[in-house]
Amino acid sequence: MSLTRLTIQPLIDLALREDIGTGDVTTDLTVSPAATSAAELIAKQEGVIAGLPVARWVFETLDREVQFEEVVAEGDGIEFEDDNVTLKLLARLTGRTRALLTGERVALNFLQRMSGIATMTAHFVESVSTISANADQAASRPGKGIRTQVLDTRKTTPGLRVLEKYAVRVGGGTNHRFGLYDAVLIKDNHIAACGGIGIAVARARASVSPTMRIEVETQNLRQVREALEAGADIIMLDNMTVESIREAVLMIAGKAKVEVSGGVNEDNIGDLATTGVDYISVGALTHSAPSLDISLRLL
Amino acid sequence: MSLTRLTIQPLIDLALREDIGTGDVTTDLTVSPAATSAAELIAKQEGVIAGLPVARWVFETLDREVQFEEVVAEGDGIEFEDDNVTLKLLARLTGRTRALLTGERVALNFLQRMSGIATMTAHFVESVSTISANADQAASRPGKGIRTQVLDTRKTTPGLRVLEKYAVRVGGGTNHRFGLYDAVLIKDNHIAACGGIGIAVARARASVSPTMRIEVETQNLRQVREALEAGADIIMLDNMTVESIREAVLMIAGKAKVEVSGGVNEDNIGDLATTGVDYISVGALTHSAPSLDISLRLL
Amino acid sequence: MSLTRLTIQPLIDLALREDIGTGDVTTDLTVSPAATSAAELIAKQEGVIAGLPVARWVFETLDREVQFEEVVAEGDGIEFEDDNVTLKLLARLTGRTRALLTGERVALNFLQRMSGIATMTAHFVESVSTISANADQAASRPGKGIRTQVLDTRKTTPGLRVLEKYAVRVGGGTNHRFGLYDAVLIKDNHIAACGGIGIAVARARASVSPTMRIEVETQNLRQVREALEAGADIIMLDNMTVESIREAVLMIAGKAKVEVSGGVNEDNIGDLATTGVDYISVGALTHSAPSLDISLRLL
Amino acid sequence: MSLTRLTIQPLIDLALREDIGTGDVTTDLTVSPAATSAAELIAKQEGVIAGLPVARWVFETLDREVQFEEVVAEGDGIEFEDDNVTLKLLARLTGRTRALLTGERVALNFLQRMSGIATMTAHFVESVSTISANADQAASRPGKGIRTQVLDTRKTTPGLRVLEKYAVRVGGGTNHRFGLYDAVLIKDNHIAACGGIGIAVARARASVSPTMRIEVETQNLRQVREALEAGADIIMLDNMTVESIREAVLMIAGKAKVEVSGGVNEDNIGDLATTGVDYISVGALTHSAPSLDISLRLL
Amino acid sequence: MSLTRLTIQPLIDLALREDIGTGDVTTDLTVSPAATSAAELIAKQEGVIAGLPVARWVFETLDREVQFEEVVAEGDGIEFEDDNVTLKLLARLTGRTRALLTGERVALNFLQRMSGIATMTAHFVESVSTISANADQAASRPGKGIRTQVLDTRKTTPGLRVLEKYAVRVGGGTNHRFGLYDAVLIKDNHIAACGGIGIAVARARASVSPTMRIEVETQNLRQVREALEAGADIIMLDNMTVESIREAVLMIAGKAKVEVSGGVNEDNIGDLATTGVDYISVGALTHSAPSLDISLRLL
Amino acid sequence: MSLTRLTIQPLIDLALREDIGTGDVTTDLTVSPAATSAAELIAKQEGVIAGLPVARWVFETLDREVQFEEVVAEGDGIEFEDDNVTLKLLARLTGRTRALLTGERVALNFLQRMSGIATMTAHFVESVSTISANADQAASRPGKGIRTQVLDTRKTTPGLRVLEKYAVRVGGGTNHRFGLYDAVLIKDNHIAACGGIGIAVARARASVSPTMRIEVETQNLRQVREALEAGADIIMLDNMTVESIREAVLMIAGKAKVEVSGGVNEDNIGDLATTGVDYISVGALTHSAPSLDISLRLL
Repeated sequence: MSLTRLTIQPLIDLALREDIGTGDVTTDLTVSPAATSAAELIAKQEGVIAGLPVARWVFETLDREVQFEEVVAEGDGIEFEDDNVTLKLLARLTGRTRALLTGERVALNFLQRMSGIATMTAHFVESVSTISANADQAASRPGKGIRTQVLDTRKTTPGLRVLEKYAVRVGGGTNHRFGLYDAVLIKDNHIAACGGIGIAVARARASVSPTMRIEVETQNLRQVREALEAGADIIMLDNMTVESIREAVLMIAGKAKVEVSGGVNEDNIGDLATTGVDYISVGALTHSAPSLDISLRLL
Repeated sequence: MSLTRLTIQPLIDLALREDIGTGDVTTDLTVSPAATSAAELIAKQEGVIAGLPVARWVFETLDREVQFEEVVAEGDGIEFEDDNVTLKLLARLTGRTRALLTGERVALNFLQRMSGIATMTAHFVESVSTISANADQAASRPGKGIRTQVLDTRKTTPGLRVLEKYAVRVGGGTNHRFGLYDAVLIKDNHIAACGGIGIAVARARASVSPTMRIEVETQNLRQVREALEAGADIIMLDNMTVESIREAVLMIAGKAKVEVSGGVNEDNIGDLATTGVDYISVGALTHSAPSLDISLRLL
Repeated sequence: MSLTRLTIQPLIDLALREDIGTGDVTTDLTVSPAATSAAELIAKQEGVIAGLPVARWVFETLDREVQFEEVVAEGDGIEFEDDNVTLKLLARLTGRTRALLTGERVALNFLQRMSGIATMTAHFVESVSTISANADQAASRPGKGIRTQVLDTRKTTPGLRVLEKYAVRVGGGTNHRFGLYDAVLIKDNHIAACGGIGIAVARARASVSPTMRIEVETQNLRQVREALEAGADIIMLDNMTVESIREAVLMIAGKAKVEVSGGVNEDNIGDLATTGVDYISVGALTHSAPSLDISLRLL
Repeated sequence: MSLTRLTIQPLIDLALREDIGTGDVTTDLTVSPAATSAAELIAKQEGVIAGLPVARWVFETLDREVQFEEVVAEGDGIEFEDDNVTLKLLARLTGRTRALLTGERVALNFLQRMSGIATMTAHFVESVSTISANADQAASRPGKGIRTQVLDTRKTTPGLRVLEKYAVRVGGGTNHRFGLYDAVLIKDNHIAACGGIGIAVARARASVSPTMRIEVETQNLRQVREALEAGADIIMLDNMTVESIREAVLMIAGKAKVEVSGGVNEDNIGDLATTGVDYISVGALTHSAPSLDISLRLL
Repeated sequence: MSLTRLTIQPLIDLALREDIGTGDVTTDLTVSPAATSAAELIAKQEGVIAGLPVARWVFETLDREVQFEEVVAEGDGIEFEDDNVTLKLLARLTGRTRALLTGERVALNFLQRMSGIATMTAHFVESVSTISANADQAASRPGKGIRTQVLDTRKTTPGLRVLEKYAVRVGGGTNHRFGLYDAVLIKDNHIAACGGIGIAVARARASVSPTMRIEVETQNLRQVREALEAGADIIMLDNMTVESIREAVLMIAGKAKVEVSGGVNEDNIGDLATTGVDYISVGALTHSAPSLDISLRLL
Repeated sequence: MSLTRLTIQPLIDLALREDIGTGDVTTDLTVSPAATSAAELIAKQEGVIAGLPVARWVFETLDREVQFEEVVAEGDGIEFEDDNVTLKLLARLTGRTRALLTGERVALNFLQRMSGIATMTAHFVESVSTISANADQAASRPGKGIRTQVLDTRKTTPGLRVLEKYAVRVGGGTNHRFGLYDAVLIKDNHIAACGGIGIAVARARASVSPTMRIEVETQNLRQVREALEAGADIIMLDNMTVESIREAVLMIAGKAKVEVSGGVNEDNIGDLATTGVDYISVGALTHSAPSLDISLRLL
């Protein structure tokens, strides 16, 4: 659940250069280079915090000597216990005032987006978990816990996939493949081009790395059966009804993993989870999560 | 309202390399390099389309000979006139099947995000416009049209600011400054560091480029007066009540431009617009707009 | 088995800039910019050809109008049928003489290295294939063909992994994981850090992408058993004797894939293949394959 | 014989990013971020060590606080004095376990390749040196030492030339030109394009930097004479017999430096050296040197 | 008046890599890696010093532990008070000898160019200031000081604009826009394309960011009037006579800022300044300033 | 005397991105994307033209279909034969109006700087040539032509060295080394670090590439003698008087090439040339050449 700075630094540099351009004119003209300040990162909304290391690196990039002390931990859920207190201290910073002011917006842009994703992910995971617990109880299987995992997709912001998929993990979700390169996912167009699910899976099986799994996207039960017979490792049920999903799960009977995809939202994810599928993938986690409201204030 | 390919190409390359990595294994194994296909970009949700040139460039980057024919124009609003038809053709493509399949997700990731931003912007602009029209009518000033402009902020996705601010323009909004480098915006921390609004504005005025304007962020009417006396070009009213805003507008009396900022949403933007301010800035346009649902289907 | 130009072009640019630096002084001083020539790529040694598309792109990068006509196909085996003829025409080129001379060395450096790797891979694959056929015959199972796949490793030239692993595929081998990111491979140090194979596999299983497999490296049969019980997808037998390998294969009994690794060479790969393991990985394919002798001659 | 980190760092970053990609999943899942370890770099084969600074920088890139203590020096020859001891400690490391595990393969990939090149170079240099000493003794000129230098070529791995040519120097060899930009080397195609050796050399002499030498590649004694008369600084004898080489050396008589090139191997380099040429260039040093076997073990 | 290292570092790396290439062979062969030295940066010509932070960063890039102690401050004017002493100590350095020798030329190339620009700018500013003071005195307005600002242009060295415009500020000048992106400057070709000044300004006003000013370039008084009526923020008088300029200033009467441009030199800037224009822009500041003579000597 | 586009393109991209930033707002708002125009590049000052290919590539980068027709050739000298005509057409362009307007400044910035350098170089070369011819005539050696070559130095604009050294060649000059990597130039600090000229040259001779020459910088005749005895290929006479230079030339007597350096200007270069030295190096060619006045006008 960690990030490698070597990989993230180019994104930080890109973001800072985008914002600073030829120079932060306001700060240059109004703040002395020698001035130092203390500051606080504050959440103004409930949610799950993701991106604290990125925020830290943003400030360290501008001033190697900035002190960044985390008050909450990465992945912590922020809840306002008292209706009158709708602020939560996330971290304390001290350093050159110029670095704090110049880095503020970029640090927040990362932190707010990543926390927004983690927060939405946590809501979906929570929904699945609750349903699972209820189902367990109903079926007198207490304590078996969550079985269905919430997956992300490749519907991420161009260039930020590594951060957004990390935020999904922070929120309790699981990553689907990272790109076109690390898993085989045979969709309808591939099937059409090949002449059938069976031949497509066979071709893939003959050549791909043994470390890579093969998933097949299916639109109906006939295709599910074909994928199963072809030996797919994972079968995706795309935009199927709950009834069809149940039937598919019975048909597959554990011989392949099952993923549900398409049109998943907070209203229907509970029903989907009760079908016993292994994974439910949710594009909205990364393409439509609103930012979490976080700000920086100088003391 | 246009984009320069030279500037955007690095983002396209970044996004394609992020997704393709060491190779699109599924397509490589199942689709012949010589195969060609036709395809369609389809909107499945109502909104304003932004990003068609970027989508085109994504495919051209993978296959110089792809044909990309726009059926709707950049900035067109998509409306489903018939309840039974909830699809709208945006563009037709022909080219190598491999290029279409490999580029699909990246092209959509750009197009969906940019259209999402344009769509949300258009809603805010529409709200302001309606209110203005009503106010004009009430005041017997028909036809004066919109006076208040909807602005974006620097709360954009790291690395994508140029695309997101372009999408705001496509949606009918106006861009605030692009970064820390192209305008002076004196906030409370700068004021504190300088010792007052007057001195901060004076310092800025003495040194900055004559092409740059100076804006001052104010929290209350006392600060508004100071900013006005200091000769600020634009005065931002940050998180003020509608009553205070009205008072500020009266005090400023056209001697500076007036911007309202903070906590703006579709519910209160109408009221804010009736105060007669010049600009209302909305962070949500770029940090919380959900994607517009668009997909590509091979024919 | 294909390469994406978008991914390879940065390597071509890097190589050309490394060689050309501030300019090809010899060609500049002795060859007219307007002169054109025909040329031939010639193999002077038997082997398997890999890298023709890269050679083509090198010349196209210097002169968009170069014609590059392949006479043999990527992956073809070159054999000199007549003892007196030890040359084989690979491709014909025409274009600006300057581009041909300036690009020659870089194109050959790619082509010779990639063909060297494909050639060594083909030798290993051939050894396994022969042994398997013999074993089939001995066991009266004619026609079952090859069962053991030859894998590469991460022991590749820094920066060129995508090309070297492609060359392995061209030579008939199969790729192991591409990096630290696309599969879980639990080695002794990870096991030690975790406190055991069981816990290491369990932790990985709980969190990794469902598209990723989990492999465990084992040094002895006790560890093999632990890995099996932990549910590893692939079990690597590291530097074990043929006897131990046979025992391990019996123990695993198809419940996981089996990979042999360590000290594999052309002398012992036959014996290793007869053990019935699924994969044999060979670092030498990419770290010690000598170049294939290929040259360019102007006509 | 040193390397500038500024120049090498991009190669290190390229290699680490290639291997780490979106993250070292195994280490992330099994090793605590706080854990630290000691480790050893061990040679398991005799040879000459090159690349220790690069290995150090790889680990420092991942963890600024890694300690890397060299036990042998760059360029040291490793010999196993005792048949039972076939390991040699090269360096001791301490640092964060994650950094050690994540950086291991990249550090070794650099170190093994560079040491392989240094080792092969040392063998060629040793062969020349022995022959020279014998020849001196036969001619009663003891102690004159080596006269013929072993040169590398431009047949290097794309992108790694600066490291590979450095490794040649570490092994006792001498660098030929680094690229097309830092010397004039007139080959047959340039001669043909110009209309003769004389005119080619004259043109080059008239324009090139006074700091650059002019070398001419010759195929026969007639061309050697032409090159000599044209005033070439260095004359390359390409693929000539030992007899022709001797004749050429007599003809040139010290008026130009003499380089032998083409088909040089450990068997014939001795004979070539006895001809008294100044330089023998060997492409195999960089295009076909096998890796030296080195590994890292955690303590 | 400050520089952000994050923005400048790529230029420093580019310059050092350009100069060092595959290695500083002379220093490598003659200076021990362990040797340290003290050195001095010395001005050998009178002028204004700009670029000391860049020189410092050059050396720090090569050796993190270099000590760089400024003896004069950025922006200080160097004057030789005694005819016999034509040297002025600018800074003292200590560090590894290799770093000092390898970085010397690049540090000086930055420092000499930037100081050359600052020096020329200071001369122009001084000319304007003297004239203004004289004019004030003549008009019995002592102490009103300088009113006309000296501006730079976009006629800068490709890639170095941020440094050159900074040097202009150090020399007392003011920056015009940084590029095509941060101000609207409507020239004759834009006017022709639009069909008139009025429509061009109106279009720009309707769409551009409220933080951006609109300037119109005019060739004659008719155009000045049009620009004024169109509501231009700044009116540029291009290549007009002093008489026309005076007339234009009267016509504009403070309703817009006035910039004079074209053919400005040290001879005529005085006359131009007496016209009372707000700005005089001088391309020569960045395209034709000779270097200031500065050198480094090891002690 | 040519440029490789692969090498120059990154500089063009850097310059265009620097100028265009987030977009050419003026052109976007006032010029239709479909509009096309013809334009002319015009010299408004006499001089030598260098950089036409770079100007062409700038426009081609923005619009692949721009037509760029050279009217004068690279390296042509521009002279105004008629006092009333002080303009000279250099090239004709046609293409999209937007591309012409957006690329104008960057193309001119390259072309004006490069032509400025070529022009100053041509003046120095002409001075040497005239003196040489006079000296030949005086000594009754008509027709021997120029013997002394004018060299550039490493005092170039950071990042633009390859273009500036090319412009020196266009102006008739000769390039000294390109960087620290392609020649050995032993200066006083290196000598001091080594313990003498003899040992420094010997060390360099033992290790450097045979294609590289060794130059020694000398301050007096004693050092000249040492450099000569050490076998330096080139001896630089740094800041010596004409008398000392004559003495040094006699002492060296053709056994090494001789370069004069330091304080060379158009006034003294004639005297220096009569001493019979091989090379005179002039830093001002690249660090202080004023731009040549060139402009673009749309038709």
